[in-house]
Amino acid sequence: MTCHDRTETIRKLVSPQSIAVIGASADFSKVNGRPLKHLIEKGYTGDILPVNPKYREIAGLACYPDIASLPVAADLAIIALPAAFVCDCVAELGRKGIRAAVIFSSGFGEMGPEGKALEQRLAETAKAAGVILLGPNCLGFINAFENVYATFSQYADGETGAGPIAFVTQSGAFGTALAALVRRRGLGLGYFVNTGNQADLDFAELMSVVVEDPRIKVAAGYLEGVKDGEALVRLAKKCRALGKPLILTKVGRMGSGARAAASHTGALAVSDAVFDAVVRQYGVLRARNEEQMLDMMEVFCQPRRAKGNGLGIATQSGGAGVMMADRAEEVGLAVPELGAETQARLSAVMPAFGAAGNPVDVTGQFVARPELLSESVVGMLEDPDIDVAIVWLQLMTAHVDKLLNIFTEIRDRTAKPFLVCWVAAPEAAVTGLRALGIPMFTAGERAVEAAAALARYGMLPAPGADIAVAPVALPSMISAGAQPTVEASAWLRAAGVPMAHVALAESADAAVALWRGNGGPVALKIESPDILHKTEIEGILLNVDSEEDIRAGYATLIERAKTMAPDARISGVLVQEMSAGHVELVVGVSRDPVFGIIVMVGLGGVLVEVLKDVTFRKAPFSREEALVMLSELRMGAVLDGVRGKPAVDRGRIAAMLANLSQWAAGMADHLSELDLNPVLVGADGPSVVDCVMIFDTVPTASGKG
Amino acid sequence: MTCHDRTETIRKLVSPQSIAVIGASADFSKVNGRPLKHLIEKGYTGDILPVNPKYREIAGLACYPDIASLPVAADLAIIALPAAFVCDCVAELGRKGIRAAVIFSSGFGEMGPEGKALEQRLAETAKAAGVILLGPNCLGFINAFENVYATFSQYADGETGAGPIAFVTQSGAFGTALAALVRRRGLGLGYFVNTGNQADLDFAELMSVVVEDPRIKVAAGYLEGVKDGEALVRLAKKCRALGKPLILTKVGRMGSGARAAASHTGALAVSDAVFDAVVRQYGVLRARNEEQMLDMMEVFCQPRRAKGNGLGIATQSGGAGVMMADRAEEVGLAVPELGAETQARLSAVMPAFGAAGNPVDVTGQFVARPELLSESVVGMLEDPDIDVAIVWLQLMTAHVDKLLNIFTEIRDRTAKPFLVCWVAAPEAAVTGLRALGIPMFTAGERAVEAAAALARYGMLPAPGADIAVAPVALPSMISAGAQPTVEASAWLRAAGVPMAHVALAESADAAVALWRGNGGPVALKIESPDILHKTEIEGILLNVDSEEDIRAGYATLIERAKTMAPDARISGVLVQEMSAGHVELVVGVSRDPVFGIIVMVGLGGVLVEVLKDVTFRKAPFSREEALVMLSELRMGAVLDGVRGKPAVDRGRIAAMLANLSQWAAGMADHLSELDLNPVLVGADGPSVVDCVMIFDTVPTASGKG
Repeated sequence: MTCHDRTETIRKLVSPQSIAVIGASADFSKVNGRPLKHLIEKGYTGDILPVNPKYREIAGLACYPDIASLPVAADLAIIALPAAFVCDCVAELGRKGIRAAVIFSSGFGEMGPEGKALEQRLAETAKAAGVILLGPNCLGFINAFENVYATFSQYADGETGAGPIAFVTQSGAFGTALAALVRRRGLGLGYFVNTGNQADLDFAELMSVVVEDPRIKVAAGYLEGVKDGEALVRLAKKCRALGKPLILTKVGRMGSGARAAASHTGALAVSDAVFDAVVRQYGVLRARNEEQMLDMMEVFCQPRRAKGNGLGIATQSGGAGVMMADRAEEVGLAVPELGAETQARLSAVMPAFGAAGNPVDVTGQFVARPELLSESVVGMLEDPDIDVAIVWLQLMTAHVDKLLNIFTEIRDRTAKPFLVCWVAAPEAAVTGLRALGIPMFTAGERAVEAAAALARYGMLPAPGADIAVAPVALPSMISAGAQPTVEASAWLRAAGVPMAHVALAESADAAVALWRGNGGPVALKIESPDILHKTEIEGILLNVDSEEDIRAGYATLIERAKTMAPDARISGVLVQEMSAGHVELVVGVSRDPVFGIIVMVGLGGVLVEVLKDVTFRKAPFSREEALVMLSELRMGAVLDGVRGKPAVDRGRIAAMLANLSQWAAGMADHLSELDLNPVLVGADGPSVVDCVMIFDTVPTASGKG
Repeated sequence: MTCHDRTETIRKLVSPQSIAVIGASADFSKVNGRPLKHLIEKGYTGDILPVNPKYREIAGLACYPDIASLPVAADLAIIALPAAFVCDCVAELGRKGIRAAVIFSSGFGEMGPEGKALEQRLAETAKAAGVILLGPNCLGFINAFENVYATFSQYADGETGAGPIAFVTQSGAFGTALAALVRRRGLGLGYFVNTGNQADLDFAELMSVVVEDPRIKVAAGYLEGVKDGEALVRLAKKCRALGKPLILTKVGRMGSGARAAASHTGALAVSDAVFDAVVRQYGVLRARNEEQMLDMMEVFCQPRRAKGNGLGIATQSGGAGVMMADRAEEVGLAVPELGAETQARLSAVMPAFGAAGNPVDVTGQFVARPELLSESVVGMLEDPDIDVAIVWLQLMTAHVDKLLNIFTEIRDRTAKPFLVCWVAAPEAAVTGLRALGIPMFTAGERAVEAAAALARYGMLPAPGADIAVAPVALPSMISAGAQPTVEASAWLRAAGVPMAHVALAESADAAVALWRGNGGPVALKIESPDILHKTEIEGILLNVDSEEDIRAGYATLIERAKTMAPDARISGVLVQEMSAGHVELVVGVSRDPVFGIIVMVGLGGVLVEVLKDVTFRKAPFSREEALVMLSELRMGAVLDGVRGKPAVDRGRIAAMLANLSQWAAGMADHLSELDLNPVLVGADGPSVVDCVMIFDTVPTASGKG
C-alpha cells in the first residue's frame, strides 16, 4: 500500500460509508452487540452490516453468515472475536477487499510471549492482506461528527456531542475517564480513538489524519510509550503548520512510574527527559495529568490566543490574587504592574480600598456597581503589557445573571483572551459561561496553568523551514568503534565545533617537536582505542612546558598505560594546547532508539553528577534553539558570572551546539556516541578539551553506510 | 485580663449563651440583618438581643435602644456599625460588662494610614475596656455545633452541617470559597471563623481554643501573613499533643505573590522559606492551595492513619497506575514491590493479564468477579511494606452498588487507611463512599498527594519534650556590634561548635610565636571590627609556614587594610590553624522578626549563590532535627561523596548545628546575626573557618539585656 493509499484508507476508517460488524451479537449489552446498539440508536447514516452465522437479522438489519457473503466491501470492519480467530478473519477481510479493521479482541501483546507472537502474526497477516488495523485490545473509536460508534466503551453510553477536540489515547480505561470528564465540562470530542496495542496504526499516524478535519481545533493525546519518534515529530510539525495545538500526556515520568509502564505496556521505554525535551522542541504542550489536559483543552477550545506572557488578575479576594500571582511566577508568566494610564483608568472606577495594581482587588462591591468589574477587566486587557487575564470570584449564587452580563460585556469589548475562575460556582454560572464561549475554571492555580499554556503556545516561534542536513563525507577506510582523537577533532573542527588543537606523538622526540610547535604549555594524554576514559589510568598530564618534562611525561604515560591496561593497543601520546575557561560544560550526543540523534548540554563537574542539570534536543537544531537550551539549565546563572567571574558568551556556546547538532544529524547512520567533556568556556568562547567518538557502522566516502 | 480569663472569654465568644447584635436591622438581606436571620432560622438556642433605637422589636425579639439598656451582659456582641462608631461602641460594651465582640465593619487597617490609626485606637480602646475583639473587617464566625451564626457570610445561606473540621481564615472571600467547597464535598465545618484584620484575636489564639473542642478532629487555617510566630509554634505543638492534624495554607510563596500580599494585607512579610521550614519543623501540614487543603481535610476526617510511606496502588487502568506511581515518587512515597507472599496471594485471584506487582492492574474484570478487587486490596493492605492504599477506577455508572459493597468489605476487613480515586464518578458513588467514611478523590495525582500527607503525618516523630535553653553567661563588658573573632570563637567552641583554633597577634613577633605554637602552616587574617568581609580587602593569606613568610604576611595584611579601608580600626592579625575538608558548608543564624532565632545551613560556594540550596530551622532544635535539615538539601548527595571523595559524617555536622541552635537560642536577646562561612568538612568532621558575630544589644553577665 502506498503512503497515499494508506492515508486515504485511514480517512475511510474514521469516516466510513459502511461498517461490517464481524461476530455481531443481538445482545446489545455484550461487547459484540454494543457497537450495533450505538450505531443504530445514535443515527449512523451509512450501511451497517452485521456478520454472524447464528442470525438472519439483528434489529431489523440483514445479518450475513460470513465475510464473503457481504454485499459490498465495507469501508470498515469491527472485529469482536476471540483472539484465536482474529488472524483468519483479517485475511478474509483482505480477500473481500475490506481495507480497514478495528479489533476489540484482547489476548495479544499484553498477554506475555505467546500473545506477543500472536500479535506479530496478526501484523504480518494484515500487511499481506492489505488491511489497516486499529488495535487489537482497544475500545475502538467514535467519530461524533458522523455518528460512527465503532466502540464498546461505556463512554458511548451517554451523550457524546461532537466538538472541536480530537482525542487519541493508547489506554482505554484512562481514555474513557478523560472522555467522560470532557463531557462533564461541556467540551466536545469530535473524535475519540483508542489505539490499544498499536499492532499497526499508532497514535501519531492516526492523529495526523484526524487533525486535518477542519472541524477539529485541538489535538490531544494520551501516551504510555513511543515507538516511532520521527512520526511523532512529523505530527507535531503538522499541528504547528495547521495552527492547532497538540496537547500530550505521557505517563512514566519517574523511575517507579517508568517501571510500572514497562511492565504494563511492554512499550519501548523512552527516557522521559528526552521525550519531554523533544516534544517541547516541536511545540507540543505537555499536560502532566488528566486535569491539566482538560484545562488546556478548555482554554484552547476558545479561539483567542495570547501573544505574550503578561497575566492580568482581577479578584474579589486579595488572597486569591496572591496565590495566583505566586503560581504565575512558578509557571513562567509575568504579573506586570499595570501601566500608569491603566492605573489611572482603574482608579477612576475602583473603591478606595481596592488595590489598582496587579492583581486588581475589585472587592465584593461589583455586586452593587457592575462597571467596577467590567471596566477593570477591559482596562487591564487594553494595557499593552497584558496578554491574558483571569477573573477570580466565588459562590455569588444570587448574582449569576448579573455576572454573566458583565462577562458578556467584557467579551464583546475585548479581543485578548480572558479566563474566569469561579470557585464553588453555581451550576447556572458554569453552563452560562460555557454558552458564552468563555473558558471557566474552578480553582485559581489551575486557571493560571491554563493561561500559561496559552502564553507558551502564543510565544512559540513561527515554524521555520527544516534545517537541511547533508550527509557527512568521511574517508572510506574508517572502522567502527572509538575513533582516533586527532581525526575526530579534525572532523568536528571542520564542522564548526571549537576543538582544542591536538596532535599525536608516536615517540618522545615527536612529542617534544609538537610542544615546540605549540609555543607554550601543553597537555599530554594517552591515546588508545581501548582506553576511552583516560583519567581512569591517570592518563593525562597538564601544563607540561619543558623538553625534560615532555620526555618524562611521555614515558610516564606509556608506562601507566602498559601497567594499568596491559591489553590496550597504544597509539601514542596526544599533545594538546592548554584550554582556558572558568565555566565547565559537558556536551554529549547519543542515538536515542525512539528519537534518533539527541544532543545534550549541561553544567560540568559535580553539578552534572548530583544535580543532573542537563537539557536535550533532537538534532539538527538552530542556534536560537540552542540558546533556549542554555536558558533551561537550572544553574545557567553560572554562565552570566558568579563570584566575580565574567559572563561567558552564550551565543558562541549556542553556535557550537547548533553546529554539532547539524554534523551529528548528518552522521546519524554511524554515530553511536560522542562525548565532549569537559568543554571549557572563557573569554575566548568554548574550547572542547576531550572527546570520545564512537561509530557503530563504518561510514563510506558518501557518508551512507 | 489574665491569660486564663482571656481563654475563658474566647470560649464564650465562640460558644455564647447570649448574643447582642449592635445596630441590628429588620432587613434580613443587609449585613446587619443577616446574623439575626441565621440565628433565628437555624435554631440558635441562646438569647438573641438586637440593639437599635429605631425598633421596639425585630422578628418577635425585643429590641433595645442602646447597650446600656440590655437586660444582661451578653457573652458576645456583634458590631455592624460604620467604622466611625465602633470605638465608642466597644467602650460601651466594656462598661456593660460584655467581654467579647465580633466586628464586621470595614474601614480600618485595610484603608491606608487613617484606617490604620483608627484600628490602633480600636485595639487600645478594647484593651482598656476589657473587651476581646474578632475583626474588624471580617465576616464573623459560625459555630455549627451550637448554631451560632455570628456572620453575614453568603456561606451561611446554605446548609452548613456541623463536622469535625475547625477552619479559621484570615481572608473572608477566600475562606468563604473554601467553606463552600467543603460543603460540596460533604465534609463538615464545626467552626468557620474569619479573623479579618486581627486587631486583637489572631489565627493562632483563636484556633488554640477551638481545637480543644473534642468534636474537632482536624484544624485548618488560611493565612496571608504571620505576626506572632511563637503563638503559631505553640498552636502547632498543641495540635501535635492533641493528635489533631493542623493544615495550613499561606499565600505569598513567590516574589510577585509576596508583593501582592504585602499590598493587600499590610501583614508583616515573613520569608516564605523560613515559614515553610518552621511550620514543618513543628508538624504542620502545609497545603499549597485550596484543592490540596480540601484533599487533606478529606483524608484526615477519616480516623485511620498511615504508619509509614509505603503506597499500594490498585487500578483498572495500567496508565493511571503509572501516573500515580510517578507522582508518589515525587512526593516522597514509596511504591514498594509487594512481598512474595502477597504476590502469591494476588496471583491466586488475578486474571492472567493483570500485573500482580505494584501498581496492581485488576483490569475491568472485577465487574464479573468482585473478589478480584476486594482480595487484591485486602491482600495489598496486609503486606507489611504497605501503609496506605489507593484504588483507582472510572465511570462504572452501572456498577455503583456492586462497588460500594466491595469497598464496604475492604473497609471491614482492614485497619490501614485506603483511599478511593473514582474519576468521573456517578453521584451515587460519591455520596455512597462518603456515607461509608471512605475518603474519595476524583483525580489520581490528588489522591496520591493526600496519601502522602497521611504518611507524612504518620511518620512525624512523637512530640518530644522542649529543648531547655539556658541564657548564655557572657562577660559584662561586651559592646554591641561585631564581636572579636577570638572571643566569638571561644564562646562557640565552649558551646560545642568546632571552630578552628585562632589567636590574635598584635605584632609580627606575636604572629611568629603563634605560628610556632601551632606547629604547622597557618592562615593569617586581618582582624578589625569594621571589616566584616575580610576577602573584600584581600585580608586573608593561607598556608603560611615560615618565619619570613609570617612576617611578610603580617606586614602585607596591615598595609592592605590601611590602604583599602583607611578608616577601619585594626585590631591586629589573626593566626589560625589550617582546616581541611573537601565539603564546604555555610551556616548562618539570624533573628527573624516573626519566628525569632533561625539557623540556616547550605552547601557552600557557587551552589549557595546560584541554587540557594539552603534549609532553615527555628532554634533550638535537636541533633535528629538537624539530620532532617541535611536530608532536605538538594545537593545533599555531596555529603555522601562524589567524584571519588569520601562521605562525611552527617552526625557530626548535625551535632554542630544542634549545639549552635541551642547556644543561639540562649542568646536570643542579643544575637543579631552570625555567619559561619566557610565550614569545611573532612574526615575529622566539620571545622568552622570564619565567623562574623554581631550583637545588637549588650549582654550582661546574666545573659539578659
